[in-house]
Amino acid sequence: MSNTLRLGIAGLGTVGIGVIKIVQEHASLLEARAGRSVSISAVSARSKAKDRGVDLSGYAWEDDPVALAKREDIDVFIELIGGDSGPAKAAVEAALAAGKHVVTANKAMLALHGQELALAAETADVNLRFEAAVAGGIPIIKTLTESLAANKITRVMGVMNGTCNYILTRMESAALPYETVFEEANQLGYLEADPNLDVGGIDAAHKLVLLSSIAFGTQVNFTGAELEGIGQITIEDIDHARDMGFRIKLLGVAQMTDAGLEQSMRPSLVPATSPLAQLDGGTNMVVVEGDAVEQIVLRGAGAGEGPTASAVMGDVMDIARGLKLPVFGQPAATLKPAKPAKASNEAAFCLRLNLKDVPGVMAQISTALANAGVSIDRMRQFSHNDVSAPVMIVTHPTKRSHVETAFQEIAQLNVTTETPLMLSIVDA
Amino acid sequence: MSNTLRLGIAGLGTVGIGVIKIVQEHASLLEARAGRSVSISAVSARSKAKDRGVDLSGYAWEDDPVALAKREDIDVFIELIGGDSGPAKAAVEAALAAGKHVVTANKAMLALHGQELALAAETADVNLRFEAAVAGGIPIIKTLTESLAANKITRVMGVMNGTCNYILTRMESAALPYETVFEEANQLGYLEADPNLDVGGIDAAHKLVLLSSIAFGTQVNFTGAELEGIGQITIEDIDHARDMGFRIKLLGVAQMTDAGLEQSMRPSLVPATSPLAQLDGGTNMVVVEGDAVEQIVLRGAGAGEGPTASAVMGDVMDIARGLKLPVFGQPAATLKPAKPAKASNEAAFCLRLNLKDVPGVMAQISTALANAGVSIDRMRQFSHNDVSAPVMIVTHPTKRSHVETAFQEIAQLNVTTETPLMLSIVDA
Repeated sequence: MSNTLRLGIAGLGTVGIGVIKIVQEHASLLEARAGRSVSISAVSARSKAKDRGVDLSGYAWEDDPVALAKREDIDVFIELIGGDSGPAKAAVEAALAAGKHVVTANKAMLALHGQELALAAETADVNLRFEAAVAGGIPIIKTLTESLAANKITRVMGVMNGTCNYILTRMESAALPYETVFEEANQLGYLEADPNLDVGGIDAAHKLVLLSSIAFGTQVNFTGAELEGIGQITIEDIDHARDMGFRIKLLGVAQMTDAGLEQSMRPSLVPATSPLAQLDGGTNMVVVEGDAVEQIVLRGAGAGEGPTASAVMGDVMDIARGLKLPVFGQPAATLKPAKPAKASNEAAFCLRLNLKDVPGVMAQISTALANAGVSIDRMRQFSHNDVSAPVMIVTHPTKRSHVETAFQEIAQLNVTTETPLMLSIVDA
Repeated sequence: MSNTLRLGIAGLGTVGIGVIKIVQEHASLLEARAGRSVSISAVSARSKAKDRGVDLSGYAWEDDPVALAKREDIDVFIELIGGDSGPAKAAVEAALAAGKHVVTANKAMLALHGQELALAAETADVNLRFEAAVAGGIPIIKTLTESLAANKITRVMGVMNGTCNYILTRMESAALPYETVFEEANQLGYLEADPNLDVGGIDAAHKLVLLSSIAFGTQVNFTGAELEGIGQITIEDIDHARDMGFRIKLLGVAQMTDAGLEQSMRPSLVPATSPLAQLDGGTNMVVVEGDAVEQIVLRGAGAGEGPTASAVMGDVMDIARGLKLPVFGQPAATLKPAKPAKASNEAAFCLRLNLKDVPGVMAQISTALANAGVSIDRMRQFSHNDVSAPVMIVTHPTKRSHVETAFQEIAQLNVTTETPLMLSIVDA
């Protein structure tokens, strides 16, 4: 390794260009802070011809990211290709095998292959850092791994998908239905090629499971996460929630209990006065609770050229300064397999049922809830059309499983026109 | 250095006891994450006899913190004595001279002697870390120094004194005058031995100048900070601010301009809907703006046993893992002297004048403001007693110096019963 830290960047989309701009524009700042210069040796992307608005002429070009990853003249391989496997994973594996540090923004790859890649990095005695993979510019990986290293972490929560947050807040502020705002987001380029990654909660869950691995010392386990997207949220749900003092957010929650690791990503109600409720548009927020630190809340831009490039370069600067850390905060070989558990906390739930407008229905619903041990705190029936009456019920704190039991009984009654919706009320 | 990282703790108040509890209760967690065990070799405090509720029998005792700092069986000296000089500084200097890493929560010492101590640490090639000195459990030192190392920082703001925030929020929620709440805070033990450290804004400014040193690459400069305490804020000011959609916070702002380094700690108005306005009681918040990251907001407990001990131990864990960083993010010898500059941003101001109840006064005030180039956005006169009428004026954006000029002219008019108050409105 020369004294200059030499970077190879694979993937020249928004974030890659942001990284190049920082290296070009802040050369002296980086050198002053790292004690050594940081330079780019080579880059790789699909099209060499495309004008990306930055001068690439000083960098070697590789069509193949794997070839880039192995180059002798790079110390750090920056993977910004994306995709949970394919060229991104092949190139990261090649870089680690060649003894290069890796910095990546690829949450999908790490959520599905994090354990395997962490073992490879630690075997090669190099860093594999991924601050940019979770919540854009928010320094949550460093905070969890380093600042809170002396805490037993008790809970991690977050709103970590800006597109979902945009859709939900836009539905509320513009009084537009889901389908319309979804189409708007699509036109604005906010949605992934597969929109279900966003609106299905998958992207946000990828991020959550990375946090829970660090927080709880467990191997990354995406398949154990409980997932629910925002597609079934109606403008009426949002309005009714607001009337009751809540806002709806796609909220991730991870905690370790005696039964195992609970990881859920679901639309949830948060009190309108809570910090999480204040989030608009693409802003992300992560809440960490630890036995010593109590509660820490971090907020910032969850995506975009500058914020994500800031996170990538924060990792690069750590490497330039000689930081050496296990990928998930303790050696990957010591991470315990995660035993998935269903969410067990008692919580109040907000239920939305679309009831057939026939006599006696409400009594049947109330009985089904009572039979399952679910007690009603508040109930409102809203003005309705000819077909069905929307009813919102807020329960007293109970277990999700009890509500599910009640829903099973209600399904037998044949009194609803749609599948009932259950949103937990999270006191955050 | 043995493989175990050995600590010496000087000062066994709340935070020291918190640190000891973490080391005792989380031994295996710390070892798993640091890759080595962390133990306490020796402690020091004023009274050996005092029962502190933790078992100290396994640790050597030193009456003299300087003797503790030099012990051969410690690798890290943890300074929790407090005070800007005296035994705290003597012990830190002894530790650095003996080649020990130092972790401290002492903002006053660093605000006044940070440059000198940083040079000593870097000459000795050891770490001097101080996450716990600023905003309790909030990882703002690490975020600024490491996560945002590739950003040109444009502004740092924060509410960083929990006692002042408690007083201001309690005045509002309980509708109690300053003097009553001050006495309450005193009874609750929230105030420093010299209360002016808190309510005069000194403690908060100590924290701010540490942040601006890291943010702007300048030598710590406390004497250049502009300071205004909360003692002149009345319950009426708070009520009137709320009526206009604002809350009053003791807010620190630091930014670098062509004229120099602006550092101010003053009661300020923030929009009631802003994150800063939501802060109650002892919660702290720091806002950092950088050219790439845009805006990051960090929130958490600003004091207390657990949160502050979490920050101390975060630094200890960094040292255990081999982190090596310049004290203020770049070598102390390369930090530039800070040239203090007065706050230059145009801002709207909220002015409170207590006017004599005689005809023509308002015209005179308006003329004085107009003469200084200060234009009025909104004005309200409130119901008043026989002596004087409180008038609140919100200006259009202008410079603080213009308002000061107007206040000088107003002072000549002999129409006010109290010194006028000027609070900037910060759009945060």
